Formats: sequence, structure tokens, C-alpha cells
Amino acid sequence: MINRLAIIGVGLIGGSLSLALKKASMVKEVIGYSQIQLVDQQAVDRGIIDKAATSVAEAVCNADIIFLAVPIGEMTPVLVELGKHVKDEAIITDGGSTKVRMVTEARAALGDKFSQFIPGHPIAGTEQSGHEYASASLYQGCRVILTPVKQTNNEALYTVRTMWQTIGAEVFAMAVEYHDVVLASTSHLPHVLVFTLVGMLAERDDCDEVLQYAASSFRDFSRIASSNAVMWRDICVTNKDAILELLYQYQQDLNKIEMAIRNEDSHYLIDVFERAKGARDTRFSKPT
Amino acid sequence: MINRLAIIGVGLIGGSLSLALKKASMVKEVIGYSQIQLVDQQAVDRGIIDKAATSVAEAVCNADIIFLAVPIGEMTPVLVELGKHVKDEAIITDGGSTKVRMVTEARAALGDKFSQFIPGHPIAGTEQSGHEYASASLYQGCRVILTPVKQTNNEALYTVRTMWQTIGAEVFAMAVEYHDVVLASTSHLPHVLVFTLVGMLAERDDCDEVLQYAASSFRDFSRIASSNAVMWRDICVTNKDAILELLYQYQQDLNKIEMAIRNEDSHYLIDVFERAKGARDTRFSKPT
Repeated sequence: MINRLAIIGVGLIGGSLSLALKKASMVKEVIGYSQIQLVDQQAVDRGIIDKAATSVAEAVCNADIIFLAVPIGEMTPVLVELGKHVKDEAIITDGGSTKVRMVTEARAALGDKFSQFIPGHPIAGTEQSGHEYASASLYQGCRVILTPVKQTNNEALYTVRTMWQTIGAEVFAMAVEYHDVVLASTSHLPHVLVFTLVGMLAERDDCDEVLQYAASSFRDFSRIASSNAVMWRDICVTNKDAILELLYQYQQDLNKIEMAIRNEDSHYLIDVFERAKGARDTRFSKPT
Repeated sequence: MINRLAIIGVGLIGGSLSLALKKASMVKEVIGYSQIQLVDQQAVDRGIIDKAATSVAEAVCNADIIFLAVPIGEMTPVLVELGKHVKDEAIITDGGSTKVRMVTEARAALGDKFSQFIPGHPIAGTEQSGHEYASASLYQGCRVILTPVKQTNNEALYTVRTMWQTIGAEVFAMAVEYHDVVLASTSHLPHVLVFTLVGMLAERDDCDEVLQYAASSFRDFSRIASSNAVMWRDICVTNKDAILELLYQYQQDLNKIEMAIRNEDSHYLIDVFERAKGARDTRFSKPT
């Protein structure tokens, strides 16, 4: 049982954690802090959090667990506040989509308390954001990756792992650098590719006409282009090394495909398309 | 009312047209021909077609309307057969995903009967193929593009348009070259991009591990990689001009995004991402 949980950034990710822990009767009190006070007031009214704090300091001063769910571009000043105001035994964890830079910044900001920081990433959420989409069931059956480092306190790690498991998530541990490569592969690069294509089509004079004929396959393919632009700018910037490495490789592969189309190289095209189909069908066994 | 409809290629597209016209009581008899005789026998058993022909010639000799639904890579020999065996007043139409090359080949193969050919493309279907997925409702509410040319017989065009409208489709007319650009933008290029990425990930030694953490956004993004490899090889080859032109432009845009990520060019990234989000949200008004 958590006596006091502080949620910094009461949006889809933070709000859903609060709702899920409340539903599981795993938390006594949830105090929230967001940059916009009105957000927290609405979250209190909707029963997502119990109390709205007026500062990070106020939110965290007596908290047992602090969950950071602000956009990753806004983590640094929050970490600095935490370094000053959090009590020694409190556990800090987060839900940020990139981890290498987060760990570096937490190490710098938290000092001795860094061992109490459990870097985490629930692979949940959609292209929607805001606590109006928060749900007690968001993490049910979802995967949560924790990326502990050498200094990480094992007891704190255990507590955070148990917290996620209690609300139905499957928890995995992974090296922090590897996390960023995995996510760049299956999430960050796909977003970059789709944003680029839809952004390109949007610049055409006949964009409306062209998109009018887009089928359901395009709707699914392009869903990630509806994601929040600032959030994805932050992800691109904070995980740029892994993204750029994969993007470079992708550009080489795209050049090869281009050449194969130009030369009507049937063998090469079928080889790539079948390899892709095989991997996709294996991962998602039934067509969806 | 169609007295006799011939379906050449009894798969998802051809089978669904037959089922829909039968359901609407718009056709007296449907005769089918596929390269594999067993396919047609199963289609007869399942009530998708009434009779299986043993050759294209037999299927089309007394047909009023002939619907070509073989993979586009296999259209040429069928068109040659049609040129020899189809009766003068019969109407020929098709469901192929690319149109410029189809029109060129039909013009060469059909001779005087070319005016009776109505190039068509129902924007329907999924990553699945085969008549086992055929459905009377596939075309309900779907868009069908017809690409008549100067020589096209207006009466034949009217008949085909009415046929599609009767089974619930919305019919549009478009210049044949423009069709191929529109489809390259919203379907062909997206398929090429996704096949390339998933094909690249599939070559990693840790592919299974990486894909294990893929979220629902990746499932939707990559759905089109489950499509039939041969069909997509054919589309790439038959529409290579339009695809290559767009792909070239895409590669330029991708280079710019790469540079922006490298330079942490916040302004550029947000500009592209918001433009993409705006276009996507406008086309598909609600997040899905």
C-alpha cells in the first residue's frame, strides 16, 4: 500500500496510473501537480487525483512514490526540484518514452538520491493526450520496461515493479541504451517516417483530393501522425543517437528498394516484401 | 439486370463483386475462371459463382459484363484472350490497383473493342486475399474510381458506374494518370515504406526481442506489411513512374528531417509534425 503518491504531470499516463492504483486500492492519497493549475483542478473534480499541489515541492515533500509524467522535454527542471525537496527514502520513477538522456539528467540532478530513481516506460497510450483520456484499465496487459542501472536500489526497484504488476502490467528489465534502440525501431522511427510522408502530402495543392481516396490501410498507417507534435519533437531530440543510426540504415535500404523498383528487380522486391510479411505475421499472428 | 457476368480471377475482389450483385438480385448468372481450377470449384461450392469455366474463352464467350480481377501482373495474357473471344457488345471492366499500364495493354490487346473497356479500381480489400475472405458487403460505402479515356463508350461507362452504385459504392471518375499518382501517394508509397522498415527489422538478430515490445501503434502502422508480396511487386512494377517520383521527393524530405533531428531543429520538426497532424486529423476527423 502506498501512503502518498505524487503525480507530476497529470495527463493520460499520470492520470491512468492514479486511477488504476485507486481502483486496486493500492494507494491512500494521490497528490498531483501540473504546470497548468486548471488541469489539476479538473483532475480533482473528475476523481483522478485527490489533491492539487501548487508546486513540485509541495507535491513531493511527503510522498512515498513520485511518478514523473510530464513531457520528456520538461523533465529537467522537475528533476532539479526533486533533488532539493524529495525525502531520502522516497522512490522516484517515470513514464518517459526515452531513457538514456533521462538517466543522465536524473544522475546530475538527484545526487545521492539517484539510487532511488527507477527509470521506467509503460508502453501504453495512444495518439491522444490529456487526463480526459485517462483510464484505470490503460495498463491492463501492457508492457512496462524498467531500466535500472548499477546504482539502482534493489528494494526501490522491487516496489516499482510490484506497483505495475498489481495493476495488470507485465514488467521487463532492460539496459537503458538497449531500451532506446528498441523503441527507436518500433516506435520512434515509424513516427518519423509517417510524419514525413503525411507532412509531404499535406504540402500538395491537391492534398484534400488525394487524401479523399485514402483507404483504411492509410488510416491505420497514418494514425501515429495524429500524435502530439511537441511530444514527438522531444522524443526525436532526446533519442537522436538511436534514431539517427536507424534512420541512416533505413535510408540505405530505401535506396536499394528504389533501385529495385527502377530495375523491376522482381527477385529483390519479393524477397524484402516476404521477409517483412513473415516478421509482421509472426509478431501479430492474426491479420488485424 | 446483368444476364451473364464473367469473373476472371475469383479472389477477394472478384468474389465479393459476385456476392454483392447476387445479393442485390442484379445478375442472373455468374461464371468464373481462375488459373487454379480448384479455386473455382470451391467458389461454386461456396455459392460465390454459379459455374466454373475451364478457359478464359469459355468464361467470356456469352458474357455481358466481364470483370477482370486477376493479379495485375497476370492481366496481359487475359487481355489477349479477351481480344480474341469477347463479343463486340460486351463490357469489360477491371479492379486493378494501377491503371496507366493496364490501359496501355488493353488498348493494344483489345483493338476495336477497347472502347468497351472501362478501367476501374474499387478502393477496397485488406491485406487478406482469396475468395475465402469475399463478402457481399465489401463494397458497401467504398470508393470506386473509374478512369475512362477519350475512346471510352459512354453507355458502357454508365453501365459500369450503375453496377457499382447498385451495390453501395461511391463512384468517381478520374484521369488515368492522376489515378496512379493519387494511389501512389496514399497506398503504394506507404506500402513501400512499411515493407522496407519491417524488412530491415526482420534482418536484425534480435528481431523477435525488438518486436516483442511493439505497441498497438506499430501493429497498425505495419499492418500493410502483411500484404501479398507478389501483388505488391506487381504494383511497384506497373506503377513505377509515379512511385519513383514520389519516393524521390520523400527521400529529400527524409534527408531534411534527418538534418533537423541532428541539429535539434525544434522549429522545423514541430512544423512538419503539426502539418502532418493537421492533414491527418482533417481527413480522419476522429482519432481512431
